[in-house]
Amino acid sequence: MHAIGIDIGGTKMAGALVDDAGTILKELRIPSPIDDSDQMIEAIGSLISKLDQSEQVVAVGVAAAGFMSADREIMYHSPNIAAWRNEPLKKRIETKTRLPVLLENDANAAGWAEFRFGAGVQAKSMIMLTIGTGVGGAIISDGVLLKGGFGIGAELGHAVLNPGGRECGCGQHGCVESYCSGTALLKAARELAVSGEIKATRLKELMLETGELSGEQLYQAILEDDAGANELITELGENLGTAIASIFVPVLDPELVVIGGGVSALGEKLLAPIRSSFEQLIPAKGYRPELQIVKAKFLNQAGLIGAADLARHSFA
Amino acid sequence: MHAIGIDIGGTKMAGALVDDAGTILKELRIPSPIDDSDQMIEAIGSLISKLDQSEQVVAVGVAAAGFMSADREIMYHSPNIAAWRNEPLKKRIETKTRLPVLLENDANAAGWAEFRFGAGVQAKSMIMLTIGTGVGGAIISDGVLLKGGFGIGAELGHAVLNPGGRECGCGQHGCVESYCSGTALLKAARELAVSGEIKATRLKELMLETGELSGEQLYQAILEDDAGANELITELGENLGTAIASIFVPVLDPELVVIGGGVSALGEKLLAPIRSSFEQLIPAKGYRPELQIVKAKFLNQAGLIGAADLARHSFA
Repeated sequence: MHAIGIDIGGTKMAGALVDDAGTILKELRIPSPIDDSDQMIEAIGSLISKLDQSEQVVAVGVAAAGFMSADREIMYHSPNIAAWRNEPLKKRIETKTRLPVLLENDANAAGWAEFRFGAGVQAKSMIMLTIGTGVGGAIISDGVLLKGGFGIGAELGHAVLNPGGRECGCGQHGCVESYCSGTALLKAARELAVSGEIKATRLKELMLETGELSGEQLYQAILEDDAGANELITELGENLGTAIASIFVPVLDPELVVIGGGVSALGEKLLAPIRSSFEQLIPAKGYRPELQIVKAKFLNQAGLIGAADLARHSFA
Repeated sequence: MHAIGIDIGGTKMAGALVDDAGTILKELRIPSPIDDSDQMIEAIGSLISKLDQSEQVVAVGVAAAGFMSADREIMYHSPNIAAWRNEPLKKRIETKTRLPVLLENDANAAGWAEFRFGAGVQAKSMIMLTIGTGVGGAIISDGVLLKGGFGIGAELGHAVLNPGGRECGCGQHGCVESYCSGTALLKAARELAVSGEIKATRLKELMLETGELSGEQLYQAILEDDAGANELITELGENLGTAIASIFVPVLDPELVVIGGGVSALGEKLLAPIRSSFEQLIPAKGYRPELQIVKAKFLNQAGLIGAADLARHSFA
């Protein structure tokens, strides 16, 4: 049996036909007309009809960022899709496509993909941290995706790591996201670039080429193994390791932590400091079983694969 | 169908015959011979045989504090029972009593009792914080008790509220328990009593009666509505409200937080500051459904009732 996964972003939406082993058989990408809810439904419908050319398709899973109702019928508020405010998304897509539709938070869908087909296939209880523009979270507890009582659980990026610390977009201070997101990394790099410190020499040089340091330039410095850029990655990793040891492990006790999202492409450069700060902090070290911290298998396709599989599970 | 619940403490163990509505039909209490594992098994066995006088008894649930294996066969380390180090507790009690035995952490058993028969009967997703000598935790997610990947999840008292803060018995710094337990409250009261502050007058007076302020004396000051004691309760409540808003809600998104344990007997004196600090901190206030924070229904009997019900569920 196949299912269709749709992953909706603020500039593009991707769609894929996915088999029951999580393999993508066909993938398409079109722009997201984010200002018009009718056009959004049209675009999603057109993606689905292009992918639904087999009688084996049993359901559609739609992954998007935003606050949605606990029953996953309504998208209350999507930060990236201006047209989605109290949008009855599930019903509208079902009416359009005549296929059963499952709606899920994009970070949850990505975590589910890793659990079913990726880095978490051996685990029963795991968490995933998606390090991109923000920090997304997913919790799988004994094989079940934790959605929360009001449908907004697993917001791991908004657990408070440092009370009274950096202001976060969510209105709190000191959230994991304000220390460990790609956005926080770039901000720290821009501050370092103008600091006058010796280790900032290369970042400053790159900055002066364009006026303001870009994400691409920071990535270039990282690839060059620049000391200043390395220090920032290490700090980000140490903060993540601290959050895992001091918050996520006492509360959730996962067997496995999967690090995904764009920043996870840095691999060991990011994972080594996460592991080392985790190991320094974990209580009763040596007297308890220890979790593994690993890189995600999927990068951009986790949302597609996870949404399709959740839909297949729900309706097949 | 009935089940037997056993709740094992460091000085006494309690046993109860519990029906399937969570009602205690008979209850017994005997000393815990904590230094000898054979005597512990004998004592547990004698409690069970005195309670097992009906053919309706289907199982025994045993609640105790400690690190136990994920499969709930082995008690690795119980802080209060010196004789229990790598103790194959489930099998030994089953051999003794010929009844199926379920072993569970005492805070988890208490949370389950509230979920099934107490303050949480209307909820599907809730957490319980048991404020006693320490701070115990339990998580019920969509009707399922969260045990964690290694069996040591829901240690909500050891989530870090204040990094680098007060030293905790667990080896970490700044745990919820080091600010919000009965032990932390008494310690703060003793510090206040010798501070020379005006609001400490009554606490100092009580202290001088005996040399060191006792828990009973602190409780007396609280009953007298003493300003110094009140301030300490308020601080404890505010710290709990902060932990709920900044850690437990983003991670778990419960519908309900149940506050139990001995300190919860203070009622609104404790609950009001928890609610007020929670409300100040919660992100997107007014734009999201809000959880309820309530007092537990059961005080000392939650462990007995929850252990019996978990055993009935598991074996009936």
